Amino acid sequence: MIKAGVVGATGYTGEELVEVLLKNPEVEITSLSALVEKEAKFSDLYPKFGKKISLMCKDLDVEEVSSGSDVVFLALPHTVSMRIAPRFLEKGKKVIDLSADYRLPAAIYEKWYDTEHVDAGNLRDAVYGLPELNRDKIKSANIVANPGCFPTGVILGLLPIIRTVADAKLTVIVDAKSGATGAGRKALLSLSFGEVDENFKCYKANEHQHMPEMEHVLSGAAGSDVRINFVPHLLPVRRGILSTIYIQHKGLPGAADIHKMYTDRFENEPFVRIRPLGNMPEIQDVAGTNFCDVGIKVAGDMLIIVTVIDNLLKGASGQAVQNMNIMYGLDERTGLL
Amino acid sequence: MIKAGVVGATGYTGEELVEVLLKNPEVEITSLSALVEKEAKFSDLYPKFGKKISLMCKDLDVEEVSSGSDVVFLALPHTVSMRIAPRFLEKGKKVIDLSADYRLPAAIYEKWYDTEHVDAGNLRDAVYGLPELNRDKIKSANIVANPGCFPTGVILGLLPIIRTVADAKLTVIVDAKSGATGAGRKALLSLSFGEVDENFKCYKANEHQHMPEMEHVLSGAAGSDVRINFVPHLLPVRRGILSTIYIQHKGLPGAADIHKMYTDRFENEPFVRIRPLGNMPEIQDVAGTNFCDVGIKVAGDMLIIVTVIDNLLKGASGQAVQNMNIMYGLDERTGLL
Amino acid sequence: MIKAGVVGATGYTGEELVEVLLKNPEVEITSLSALVEKEAKFSDLYPKFGKKISLMCKDLDVEEVSSGSDVVFLALPHTVSMRIAPRFLEKGKKVIDLSADYRLPAAIYEKWYDTEHVDAGNLRDAVYGLPELNRDKIKSANIVANPGCFPTGVILGLLPIIRTVADAKLTVIVDAKSGATGAGRKALLSLSFGEVDENFKCYKANEHQHMPEMEHVLSGAAGSDVRINFVPHLLPVRRGILSTIYIQHKGLPGAADIHKMYTDRFENEPFVRIRPLGNMPEIQDVAGTNFCDVGIKVAGDMLIIVTVIDNLLKGASGQAVQNMNIMYGLDERTGLL
Amino acid sequence: MIKAGVVGATGYTGEELVEVLLKNPEVEITSLSALVEKEAKFSDLYPKFGKKISLMCKDLDVEEVSSGSDVVFLALPHTVSMRIAPRFLEKGKKVIDLSADYRLPAAIYEKWYDTEHVDAGNLRDAVYGLPELNRDKIKSANIVANPGCFPTGVILGLLPIIRTVADAKLTVIVDAKSGATGAGRKALLSLSFGEVDENFKCYKANEHQHMPEMEHVLSGAAGSDVRINFVPHLLPVRRGILSTIYIQHKGLPGAADIHKMYTDRFENEPFVRIRPLGNMPEIQDVAGTNFCDVGIKVAGDMLIIVTVIDNLLKGASGQAVQNMNIMYGLDERTGLL
Repeated sequence: MIKAGVVGATGYTGEELVEVLLKNPEVEITSLSALVEKEAKFSDLYPKFGKKISLMCKDLDVEEVSSGSDVVFLALPHTVSMRIAPRFLEKGKKVIDLSADYRLPAAIYEKWYDTEHVDAGNLRDAVYGLPELNRDKIKSANIVANPGCFPTGVILGLLPIIRTVADAKLTVIVDAKSGATGAGRKALLSLSFGEVDENFKCYKANEHQHMPEMEHVLSGAAGSDVRINFVPHLLPVRRGILSTIYIQHKGLPGAADIHKMYTDRFENEPFVRIRPLGNMPEIQDVAGTNFCDVGIKVAGDMLIIVTVIDNLLKGASGQAVQNMNIMYGLDERTGLL
Repeated sequence: MIKAGVVGATGYTGEELVEVLLKNPEVEITSLSALVEKEAKFSDLYPKFGKKISLMCKDLDVEEVSSGSDVVFLALPHTVSMRIAPRFLEKGKKVIDLSADYRLPAAIYEKWYDTEHVDAGNLRDAVYGLPELNRDKIKSANIVANPGCFPTGVILGLLPIIRTVADAKLTVIVDAKSGATGAGRKALLSLSFGEVDENFKCYKANEHQHMPEMEHVLSGAAGSDVRINFVPHLLPVRRGILSTIYIQHKGLPGAADIHKMYTDRFENEPFVRIRPLGNMPEIQDVAGTNFCDVGIKVAGDMLIIVTVIDNLLKGASGQAVQNMNIMYGLDERTGLL
Repeated sequence: MIKAGVVGATGYTGEELVEVLLKNPEVEITSLSALVEKEAKFSDLYPKFGKKISLMCKDLDVEEVSSGSDVVFLALPHTVSMRIAPRFLEKGKKVIDLSADYRLPAAIYEKWYDTEHVDAGNLRDAVYGLPELNRDKIKSANIVANPGCFPTGVILGLLPIIRTVADAKLTVIVDAKSGATGAGRKALLSLSFGEVDENFKCYKANEHQHMPEMEHVLSGAAGSDVRINFVPHLLPVRRGILSTIYIQHKGLPGAADIHKMYTDRFENEPFVRIRPLGNMPEIQDVAGTNFCDVGIKVAGDMLIIVTVIDNLLKGASGQAVQNMNIMYGLDERTGLL
Repeated sequence: MIKAGVVGATGYTGEELVEVLLKNPEVEITSLSALVEKEAKFSDLYPKFGKKISLMCKDLDVEEVSSGSDVVFLALPHTVSMRIAPRFLEKGKKVIDLSADYRLPAAIYEKWYDTEHVDAGNLRDAVYGLPELNRDKIKSANIVANPGCFPTGVILGLLPIIRTVADAKLTVIVDAKSGATGAGRKALLSLSFGEVDENFKCYKANEHQHMPEMEHVLSGAAGSDVRINFVPHLLPVRRGILSTIYIQHKGLPGAADIHKMYTDRFENEPFVRIRPLGNMPEIQDVAGTNFCDVGIKVAGDMLIIVTVIDNLLKGASGQAVQNMNIMYGLDERTGLL
């Protein structure tokens, strides 16, 4: 039985982690921490957990959490994680961090997150936790940087074709649409029902902090620089990201060949599903699941790739548990189907 | 041309007032005030007003607003209005107040709003601005207390039968459902998209501050005490209130007679529409309009009345302008159809 | 391993059954049947099942389904089930029927569903599958009539108090609100997004076919006639039912006593949760779960009870699997937490 | 007073036409036609029109509609309009057609709509009713082809830059997102609430019939061929289209120059609003209005243009009335602000 602590349990990803871990027969949740006014039963804070879990939710006490845990999930805001993670690592705990703090080289991180990185040592050791890319490294990692929600869907949608893209020095256009939980559980006017419902907008066009994450990981996979043009939009749904990806290139392989590159690449992946050529996935196909579905269509010199994920599962907490399963040698799907 | 100032222009009801007043050919909006960090074009704050209105939105300056206005609309939180209204009234301006501050006798107000009333004088003169009840008094009023959103739909649904109800000392059960704009434009977690979308809940069951408003106005109309059991619920829609009203009474008139009481009572009302017996209205029938639609069904000793309004129009800003039209001797429907 | 067939697998409840059964480690789904133009992989019809189930979905072949199954779930329209169920029963299969066909005495059924009942024999043997009421009978049943969605939430909300209600000959007022999947997967204009989104309405006030089901079951539980006044409404959400229940009675027990009646009655129930007195549940507390949450508030002579369920889970497919777990002697919660 | 008939009054665009025409003080609606089982008061079919319009809605009788009308709006499905329009034209009535039947040269129409064009004569005379492009021709037109919803937003977003695009032989990528009313009032499973709510998908990627309309009109405006890559998506909102347009070009003018091209081009347009450089519009800025808002952002060699319209207003019925205002020499904004 793996003993797991969840730090930051009261946000959307923290809450989802608890849901997912409760379904995993190999895991026992041993502590729930968050910034709380006073400690309270987690099921009093979130009544949906009544008769499911009886743990208290407490302010973080690293000693206490460490002593009861094998692995600690950090569902914390960026800049906070890098101050907490080292304290668990030095006690020999495994850490799966859902923030951005361990995903990027310090220089890129510091530029895009506008803050100094204070844990360069562990940053060097951290493994970017996209199983479809780094499964072997994840197996032996002590700290896994769980990917961002947008990057997960975009990177999976580009991995099989990225070398072609990089070689031809193409710019990839990513038009992404995310549900509102992607922004976290926050009391912001811009996230209020009156501003999101029946509305739709783009934001941070070509300025979103997930853009360098995509470029960095994909450049690594391609072996040379990849350039992404990334425009996210806010959907009036709770969960789900659909990314429409455009690659224009006169030298594209044939449609069937491209499709085969995708089916071959992901055939044995438990959580990636490739649609028949020309058939595009929808958010409802993956909402509530850990899957990433991918559709491909080619029209002349234009390749259109559509990927969908649940931002709270494959885009966050589901993938975090998938990583944990890998780290502990479990069937990767345990508790996730 | 009536010169109108809008105080509190940046909330949902303030914004809707501007919309409605712009459609009224007899009105010129002369000022827009609100708590703003620095003065700005209203159409920069709310781009939907671009090429429609070029006024600045400024912090309230009573002198300046007064000097340019015949009538002032106060779209302010309760407790604030009663501190502002007297300053306009003493300059001879007409005031239409959308807050709760002038709707109730001081004793009831102070109990339910948990604060002292500081403008008892004007409170005595204020007319409760439900045209279907107080049209004549509104004509000559200097200060109109625009009704609350829930009370508007409930009182209109009960007026024709209220004497029967009061005489038999019945408790009226009101199960009301309101869209999220009813709570105002606020950065609250409980109003965030993630908490309201795909959710539904009741709140303040039998403790909502609109309950005494209904009881007070209906008791006045009936000539004796009326008791309401009021349970509001939060709907995942932007606009609209549907109230389902239950009256159980062995001595009910026949269904056709009840229906005739309603059609007779509201036949000449421009903004109340009675459905054929047994036919119930929906929110979409009135969203975006100033109408209140009423449906009636009788089953044995149970009378079911359903009313729908748009909370921002008949429940707030539309009714406020209807009141203004009455105060200035215009056709009541001007700019409202 | 229990071998289960799902008949009617392509509707919302059928699809949900597949989801729930896949999570149950004691079950193997052996067949999926539905009216299909031609047989197809279920995961081609519903891509969300890709890499989760590889079965074909075929037109119903009773012989074939029977030969592979221990238990058959019928997720069929009413009037269809009673023509299919006997064929499985006579082969010795257990049947869990999600339609209305086996829930009511023939006379009541024929009146409300306006059709003759053609399987009176099995109707007599069928057990109404509300575990909180009939757990022992369910254990040995061959055919279980899974309760309707509205009745599930309403009956659970009334069971502890129903004898008081019946003794005092009170009318219970139930104002219920259901998400749109409650109407099934249908190409109806009235269920189109343009008619449901941003809308809200009541329908079939005091004429809904679930009303006699509530009255019949509750009368049985109380030992004398119970009368319900039932008004359902259509919510713009996918899933969930919230029922607000009003009981007016001068002779009510004290609030704390009523609350104790509820906590005592449901203390050991795995899927019923009673909130602290005065604390009301929301749809989001149970969406995606098999729980029924119950809140209680007393104001003078008025008792207000609010219950919430997920209409597709505790209101249909989750409860069906809960019944199966009971019939096979499993922990009732297997695959349902 | 302009006498107007509405043919096809019961669809979403027909209903919206009635709304808009009722607000126009220069118009009298003289007839409402549609395929109806039997003639009925329009306000009985759509209760929102109670106390607003008392006309009957009847099956189309061309003689009767003609005799009472100066202008006829056809809100009919494509292929139907071209069979009806000539009958009004030969009686000397003006026709504003909201279908696709008169928007494209016969050859393109026949290819994309897969049907023969049966009214080539009037097709030659028809004016494409985009006021910002064809105002002068509209003034004297007898038949106006009201633009498609997607083309309206996309063409307005490209007009100022289209010559640059065409000269450089660039492919424009249009990623468009539309609310569900864009598909019309139809009883389709794919448009049901259960399939649209909390979902998001693309459809007809590079195969949508509005793509050739954009290419045809823009090619005409540019003076040489324009190529569009058009991928529409279905948003879970009732109204509104947001189009994100990508143009990649090393020879782009500077950002400020591009912005000036837009502000200059649309400065005097009553219904097009250009945002400050880098500021992007949202659907809520235009929902319920006849405006098209345009935002521009430049990042390196990438130009991103975002436009928003209300698909039922600027994308259909509002623009139709704008065209009527132009044809009759009224202020273009009459009844539309």
